[in-house]
Amino acid sequence: MSAKYTIGLDYGTNSVRALVVNVANGAEVASAVWAYEHGVEGVMLARDPNLARQHPADYVRGAEESLREALILAAKADTKFAAERVIGIGVDTTGSTPLPVDASGLPLAFNKKFANNPAAMAWLWKDHTSIKEAGEITALAKKMRPQYLAKCGGTYSSEWFFSKIFHCLRTAPEVFKAAHSWMEQSDFVPAMLTGTLAPGKFTAGVCAAGHKGMYSATWGGYPDKKFLTKLDPEMGALRDRLTARVLAVDTAVGGLTADWAAKTGLPAGIPVTVGAIDAHTGAIGAGVKPGTLVKIIGTSTCDISVRENTAALADVPGVCGIVDGSVLPGHFGIEAGQSAVGDIFNWLVNYAVPGSSHEELTAGAAKLKPGESGLLALDWNNGNRTVLVDQLLTGLLVGQTLYTKPAEIYRALIEATAFGALTIINRHEEYGVKIEEVVNCGGIAEKSPLVMQIYADVTGRPMKVSRSGQTCALGSAVAAAVVAGAYPDFLSAQKKMTGMKAKIYKPNAKAHAVYRELYALYMQLHDAFGTRAWQGNLFGVMKKLIEIRNGAQA
Amino acid sequence: MSAKYTIGLDYGTNSVRALVVNVANGAEVASAVWAYEHGVEGVMLARDPNLARQHPADYVRGAEESLREALILAAKADTKFAAERVIGIGVDTTGSTPLPVDASGLPLAFNKKFANNPAAMAWLWKDHTSIKEAGEITALAKKMRPQYLAKCGGTYSSEWFFSKIFHCLRTAPEVFKAAHSWMEQSDFVPAMLTGTLAPGKFTAGVCAAGHKGMYSATWGGYPDKKFLTKLDPEMGALRDRLTARVLAVDTAVGGLTADWAAKTGLPAGIPVTVGAIDAHTGAIGAGVKPGTLVKIIGTSTCDISVRENTAALADVPGVCGIVDGSVLPGHFGIEAGQSAVGDIFNWLVNYAVPGSSHEELTAGAAKLKPGESGLLALDWNNGNRTVLVDQLLTGLLVGQTLYTKPAEIYRALIEATAFGALTIINRHEEYGVKIEEVVNCGGIAEKSPLVMQIYADVTGRPMKVSRSGQTCALGSAVAAAVVAGAYPDFLSAQKKMTGMKAKIYKPNAKAHAVYRELYALYMQLHDAFGTRAWQGNLFGVMKKLIEIRNGAQA
Repeated sequence: MSAKYTIGLDYGTNSVRALVVNVANGAEVASAVWAYEHGVEGVMLARDPNLARQHPADYVRGAEESLREALILAAKADTKFAAERVIGIGVDTTGSTPLPVDASGLPLAFNKKFANNPAAMAWLWKDHTSIKEAGEITALAKKMRPQYLAKCGGTYSSEWFFSKIFHCLRTAPEVFKAAHSWMEQSDFVPAMLTGTLAPGKFTAGVCAAGHKGMYSATWGGYPDKKFLTKLDPEMGALRDRLTARVLAVDTAVGGLTADWAAKTGLPAGIPVTVGAIDAHTGAIGAGVKPGTLVKIIGTSTCDISVRENTAALADVPGVCGIVDGSVLPGHFGIEAGQSAVGDIFNWLVNYAVPGSSHEELTAGAAKLKPGESGLLALDWNNGNRTVLVDQLLTGLLVGQTLYTKPAEIYRALIEATAFGALTIINRHEEYGVKIEEVVNCGGIAEKSPLVMQIYADVTGRPMKVSRSGQTCALGSAVAAAVVAGAYPDFLSAQKKMTGMKAKIYKPNAKAHAVYRELYALYMQLHDAFGTRAWQGNLFGVMKKLIEIRNGAQA
Repeated sequence: MSAKYTIGLDYGTNSVRALVVNVANGAEVASAVWAYEHGVEGVMLARDPNLARQHPADYVRGAEESLREALILAAKADTKFAAERVIGIGVDTTGSTPLPVDASGLPLAFNKKFANNPAAMAWLWKDHTSIKEAGEITALAKKMRPQYLAKCGGTYSSEWFFSKIFHCLRTAPEVFKAAHSWMEQSDFVPAMLTGTLAPGKFTAGVCAAGHKGMYSATWGGYPDKKFLTKLDPEMGALRDRLTARVLAVDTAVGGLTADWAAKTGLPAGIPVTVGAIDAHTGAIGAGVKPGTLVKIIGTSTCDISVRENTAALADVPGVCGIVDGSVLPGHFGIEAGQSAVGDIFNWLVNYAVPGSSHEELTAGAAKLKPGESGLLALDWNNGNRTVLVDQLLTGLLVGQTLYTKPAEIYRALIEATAFGALTIINRHEEYGVKIEEVVNCGGIAEKSPLVMQIYADVTGRPMKVSRSGQTCALGSAVAAAVVAGAYPDFLSAQKKMTGMKAKIYKPNAKAHAVYRELYALYMQLHDAFGTRAWQGNLFGVMKKLIEIRNGAQA
């Protein structure tokens, strides 16, 4: 039998990667990365630190450049490889990253009229301009449609689909009016590759729709027209222009067009899967199954688990989303996450202590014993996605003396993200989602034994690391293999195509004992600043500081 | 009439200064500084970050070197000057900085047997090794002699005389046993210069004794023998070996010895005043009078005010000391202070953000509007001297995002020290000590218009700056002028010899409005972390972190 290959096409925050994978064993034959051309490392910024947009032209050229290059590299690396042996393409992207499109499904940003309008770009996952609208959607849903919130942790986020669209209506009505509809990035790319952008042909993925768009078959799809109309009649009218065709990653949205085949060298007609959010295919690539928590640790984290959908699953307060079929068909996909992890470490190195480096601070931090710095931090520099679901939170550091050094702060920040991770695990288990195994992936899991050891010591659980360094792209390639018929289902495909590294980080009992004490203090701060649990509480402090800051900057 | 001069001999943390002053107008003719030879910039450190000692040999050589050099410089600078025109010497030092002495009044550290024993050195003001003993003294006094605490803010500090001696007994009993008695540095120096070190001849100053040693004529001097015996019989026995001669700075301890006259070139027999703690003579040099708060802003601050002793003065909780005659004769001296101000800024520059500079961070901070950083800090990196009187507190910073920069943190730290300053002013006024004028002195007051403007904006009060850059030494020279008979009293001497700079920092109403909001948040954190005022409070967090740190380092 001749070798077969699939490609995982993985759109990140700064670049896109095409990964060529051998379907038989998951071997990663070649990988090509293309860095976006627009903005600062692919992100278009503004004076408002909450704003982060991308130009969809980067999505188009990115597919062409990365796919073409990947085929060249694969042919060099593997003598058995040939482009015609590629049997399918899987797609994952960041999300929720919605973009407005015209009546033919083309991004408004491609229209000269809107070429320089940030509202016509893709609204990147980490864009936080829509805090006010998220609050209004949450408030209305609480009153009118509590079921919408129950599956997304009780709070609709400013990072998500409808918050961003609603903010566009409010602040850039000319863009909202010109838009026929809105798409997630993860749906735009497969539709672009298969020529199915136009309404009627267009397919959305249940992953983004369910986790970011309040979509559920239970209540007939997206939020109902009455609800959206109550937000604004224009939002209600938009409801009719959202696609009704919403599917999981075990389906193809179509075949690769002749045009794209010609541009890339791939066979025309090979299936392109329904797109998903990167972390969700990352979970597939890390071998997610019931009982496993996959932590994709990058600038932020996405924590994914699955549970068979044969029995009902209780709502888990503060967990971002529970969506049937969003990761694996036949399973509830459960998504949690931390708003910043690597970004917090990057903050210290790039902003707070210019001239330092991760290597230097890691070396210093590794010399410290748990608790030795006397420091304790909250990991909220970018808000808290899980379990508080509150963007109006900020960082906190306590315990500084006159001798506190950057390496001590660095370690305290690592520990803070570990405490955040533990809080997420505990919340899952409190609501009946047992976590029997933690599998880490992403750059930090691969490169920082210190972070992994601290995570093991803080949680008291072994930390495993995914074998692949590109689990998101690999997961998309796994999906493509299933969609192309190479495997009957995901679990059997994962068994052959994914795996773990031999090194497992085991918790040290003595360190864990110290961290239990520190975690109790962390939770005191967590509840004091992040909840209304206390009489005379500090819940208002961070919010008021943000209000004063916004006033000062106005 | 030929010109007359006095010398202010001012012992700081790192060096000693001799300032030659024209008695007629306060003109500072010459100043000579000699840096201590022992330890790191004059401070002997150990692995324990709480330990800070000095070698008393530096006090001896420091007097000789600085006095001799000052005379040479004065003669160069002022043609009317001659050494024989010096009519007196005033002395101020750090404090509480007690040192153990033998039966002839000589420091134990001069004995070869103890040459390398840190317990035989002078226990520098900022030595915090005696936290446990301070707690025990406070607890016992609360039960047995509440009046002792009422005049020192309700808590006896780990920085003070008896805490340090008690800790020596506990941890270095061989030193305690070998010591005949203990002296404050401010008493050792005048006694050394006048040959009155020996018991029977020795005089202590009421400034250090009253503010740091629970001394009051009201209850017959130092704490009574019964009380000290209850701490430990050895402490009780020591009571008999403390001097009974305790006087204010308007008295001479004696005349300069022939030996010291020969060594320095000064006239033998000129009066040397009773010594005082630097900040107290600093207040004199800054023109302190009823209604004036003098802030001596250096690595820490000392906030001094006075009130006529013709009427009783209520106790002010959390204010470090109220002592009759400690600053000006006929007045209560009221001492408050912040455990760290410049030290906090130095921490950021030297430890937290290596490679930065005060100049660079000040320039960045000056560009920010009040509240613009979104940050809020507590100024407790070195504990809180006033009004919480608690060394087991630490720094706190809240409001960090992923973009927070060092200049923003620097400004937040300046603001935090301003909030601490305001808390002290408010506490005075709540207890009937009206503050009508704030006069700043010390390096930061002179060099940082940004700090002074923020202090004005935060407090809503004009900030004046003392004309002299050496108010502590100048105040000692003023005291010497009074003691030598050049003036009938301090107020008339201050009128001639002290003054203000023309530049007054006036509060900006808009900035003050923002700072009122931020101060309300500061007080929320202050009360939550620093008091037991709240149900479910956070009072234990900083203390537990220190406990865990100490455990980890053990």
